[in-house]
Amino acid sequence: MTIRVTVWNEYVHETTQDDIAAIYPDGIHGAIADGLAGLLGEDAVIGTATLAEPEHGLTEERLAATDVLLWWGHMAHDQVDDEVVARVQRHVLGGMGLLVLHSGHFSKIFIRLMGTTCSLAWRNDAERELVWTVKPGHPIAEGVEQPIVIDRQEMYGEHFDIPDPDELVFISSFAGGEVFRSGVTFTRGLGRIFYFSPGDQEYPVYFHPQIRRVLANGVRWAAPTTSERRLPEVSNPAARDWTA
Amino acid sequence: MTIRVTVWNEYVHETTQDDIAAIYPDGIHGAIADGLAGLLGEDAVIGTATLAEPEHGLTEERLAATDVLLWWGHMAHDQVDDEVVARVQRHVLGGMGLLVLHSGHFSKIFIRLMGTTCSLAWRNDAERELVWTVKPGHPIAEGVEQPIVIDRQEMYGEHFDIPDPDELVFISSFAGGEVFRSGVTFTRGLGRIFYFSPGDQEYPVYFHPQIRRVLANGVRWAAPTTSERRLPEVSNPAARDWTA
Amino acid sequence: MTIRVTVWNEYVHETTQDDIAAIYPDGIHGAIADGLAGLLGEDAVIGTATLAEPEHGLTEERLAATDVLLWWGHMAHDQVDDEVVARVQRHVLGGMGLLVLHSGHFSKIFIRLMGTTCSLAWRNDAERELVWTVKPGHPIAEGVEQPIVIDRQEMYGEHFDIPDPDELVFISSFAGGEVFRSGVTFTRGLGRIFYFSPGDQEYPVYFHPQIRRVLANGVRWAAPTTSERRLPEVSNPAARDWTA
Amino acid sequence: MTIRVTVWNEYVHETTQDDIAAIYPDGIHGAIADGLAGLLGEDAVIGTATLAEPEHGLTEERLAATDVLLWWGHMAHDQVDDEVVARVQRHVLGGMGLLVLHSGHFSKIFIRLMGTTCSLAWRNDAERELVWTVKPGHPIAEGVEQPIVIDRQEMYGEHFDIPDPDELVFISSFAGGEVFRSGVTFTRGLGRIFYFSPGDQEYPVYFHPQIRRVLANGVRWAAPTTSERRLPEVSNPAARDWTA
Repeated sequence: MTIRVTVWNEYVHETTQDDIAAIYPDGIHGAIADGLAGLLGEDAVIGTATLAEPEHGLTEERLAATDVLLWWGHMAHDQVDDEVVARVQRHVLGGMGLLVLHSGHFSKIFIRLMGTTCSLAWRNDAERELVWTVKPGHPIAEGVEQPIVIDRQEMYGEHFDIPDPDELVFISSFAGGEVFRSGVTFTRGLGRIFYFSPGDQEYPVYFHPQIRRVLANGVRWAAPTTSERRLPEVSNPAARDWTA
Repeated sequence: MTIRVTVWNEYVHETTQDDIAAIYPDGIHGAIADGLAGLLGEDAVIGTATLAEPEHGLTEERLAATDVLLWWGHMAHDQVDDEVVARVQRHVLGGMGLLVLHSGHFSKIFIRLMGTTCSLAWRNDAERELVWTVKPGHPIAEGVEQPIVIDRQEMYGEHFDIPDPDELVFISSFAGGEVFRSGVTFTRGLGRIFYFSPGDQEYPVYFHPQIRRVLANGVRWAAPTTSERRLPEVSNPAARDWTA
Repeated sequence: MTIRVTVWNEYVHETTQDDIAAIYPDGIHGAIADGLAGLLGEDAVIGTATLAEPEHGLTEERLAATDVLLWWGHMAHDQVDDEVVARVQRHVLGGMGLLVLHSGHFSKIFIRLMGTTCSLAWRNDAERELVWTVKPGHPIAEGVEQPIVIDRQEMYGEHFDIPDPDELVFISSFAGGEVFRSGVTFTRGLGRIFYFSPGDQEYPVYFHPQIRRVLANGVRWAAPTTSERRLPEVSNPAARDWTA
Repeated sequence: MTIRVTVWNEYVHETTQDDIAAIYPDGIHGAIADGLAGLLGEDAVIGTATLAEPEHGLTEERLAATDVLLWWGHMAHDQVDDEVVARVQRHVLGGMGLLVLHSGHFSKIFIRLMGTTCSLAWRNDAERELVWTVKPGHPIAEGVEQPIVIDRQEMYGEHFDIPDPDELVFISSFAGGEVFRSGVTFTRGLGRIFYFSPGDQEYPVYFHPQIRRVLANGVRWAAPTTSERRLPEVSNPAARDWTA
């Protein structure tokens, strides 16, 4: 079954800051989509959407036709319409996969799905990040180097205020000594969620071959087994005669 | 350390329906508070609060002086002010314990902390419920009979749309054959949450000695180790010289 | 990638008790293999092995060529050679999937992988079992009816002494009122383990279309992403220069 | 209720290597017991036991009178009698708390309770270890600095081959860049298990005030709610009339 992927990006840094545009000339969404296309090939159809589009490009029709949504946002979280956030949440609970990336930890959709502050420690100092696999049999870790070495990155550190994840796949360390649960999975409703922290507008992380592999693995893992959306609903069944 | 407990109840059924008032003459909150007082004795100070009070009785001062909050609501969920809900959530994330009871599965505070629909199957048919302990070493199960027998109850059945709980303590079966994860724990921020489904306005479940024991155990378990509230916050630490 | 499946059965009931042989004329392993073949088709190659074979049919070569092993045993658990058990464990930790079925909860391999007694309550009284899905987005629950109805079954009840599972997929109730965590997953080393309780020598459960679907789903889920076995090992790495 | 603690140490390094004896003149068990006594005070009675004693000091009587056992071993794991290991396991499953320390990851008792290889990466190079709290509301993290700084330590790194823990409380980073899940909890049977890696015979880690605090917190957390041992057992209950 072909996986229908939508890469969403607020696309503000790249359109307002020349230095960021130089790193991501096709936008962060473009770099991510390109990486996915290269690794998933025929197995996926990749599209993108951005904040400036009507309904941020995330109409009911578009979400209904998306198996896995990737979310990158940073400086414009509060410009995302609450109605669109509610719509995305509904689709996730109904089965759509969701990958939340880097600064997306503070997106409305992630906070709403987690129920916590999603706060963390950070420092933008071009530090070396090492991404260690702690669950090597997990599909998201398939074929990933131990560790992934990222020469320069923003530091994200603990305490990361999220619910205990279903699965902890990656832990990062930084040159400054901090650690971070950098790859974690959750199930909410019927939807699978993967949060992955490596990736920043100021560093070319989304061109890193190993990071691209993790994202491609994540898309495969988060894809629902059925394209049908089944939002969990309250029901009031009559008592049944099970022997009938 | 004395545990400061607040039992919150919407207190609408009991004040508007005579048959319910006959079952719970002091309100559901009164029955719960009485049960806790009997079992926790000197270890706790028990107070109550209801929807009709200013700010639903849940002012900043009151919450700051509450170690564990119990929540019972059903027909008036949408009358709870969003600002109060946000305040309660903030206190839970900062360390306050929370017990969500029965129909509180559809309360604003529970849905907000879970991030899911919290929907389930139900049938009000005075069925026998059996509450089985599946984690017998857990403090909440201490001294609890295997199973707890409740002669007449509303049925709550799966699928219960909650995140995978941190711990599954109790599973119920009903005469009609349904099952329900009736006792589950979560951590959100620094706060401990226990959802426990047995208990309904139409049945005298909160007078059941075993149900009272579970609630008392739950209060002890959810009580924070410190009375200080520490809401997780974003931080931006400078790099440190760890050898200093 | 074709999944190479081995269905292991002690095959003692069927060869020593006529009434059991009448239910499972090709052995329990035969019934299971037949069900898997029908549902997995070209996606899998199914073989069987039994206790009476040399090394119980589980030689190093055979296990190296097995992606997913299913295990059914009951009255002859203690006749399984400890060396073979250690070999199976090594392959699971190295990545082989394992489905442990019904009375296999007391098999040497399951107890060794769990570290607990794996004890439970049981009653053989031809009771109706209902198998409820509590994690509907899970691949093992794909296409499974809510609930699965099994007219006559041995009762398995809580407390089931296993470690908290990674995922709880199914909970069963029985006519007598007991409940059981009947479908649970674990990861051990790189291997995925699925324990599924429905299925007994005295009842034709392995011919039930829904049970067959769960087992087929379980095989797909437990199959490793790579056929290579990578037993976790201690290592003593020198300090590295990550900037190199 | 007074917590009855037994600190077990193989006590071989200190009796055969002068440099180790200089660091731990009263043995590692002596240093740990001293730290616990200082912090737990009247709340605990602390005793010790060592490999050289008859039955390694862990007789049935001694274990029956122990609420929490701490285990330190390294070079003599294979000298621990299998019968004693089985006895300790039985007590843990029946409710006794267990703290497994540092190189105890390769002890017979830990491997048996985990079901995995418990292997890891290591390097003895006097590196700085930082111990970060990732679950700040957990009782074991109460009053612990963020991070704990240990100037010189043996490195333990991922992949650490353990089952997914019930709770992840601490993650360590090392000067060389490695990370380790250094504080993890498990439940097995009715017993609570806490593995904590900081601590080595060559470094005075067990005199570190923060490490002592973690161990004291761990003892409080692992203590059972009842002193009675209740090993989970198979049962064969008759069908009951729940209305009786």
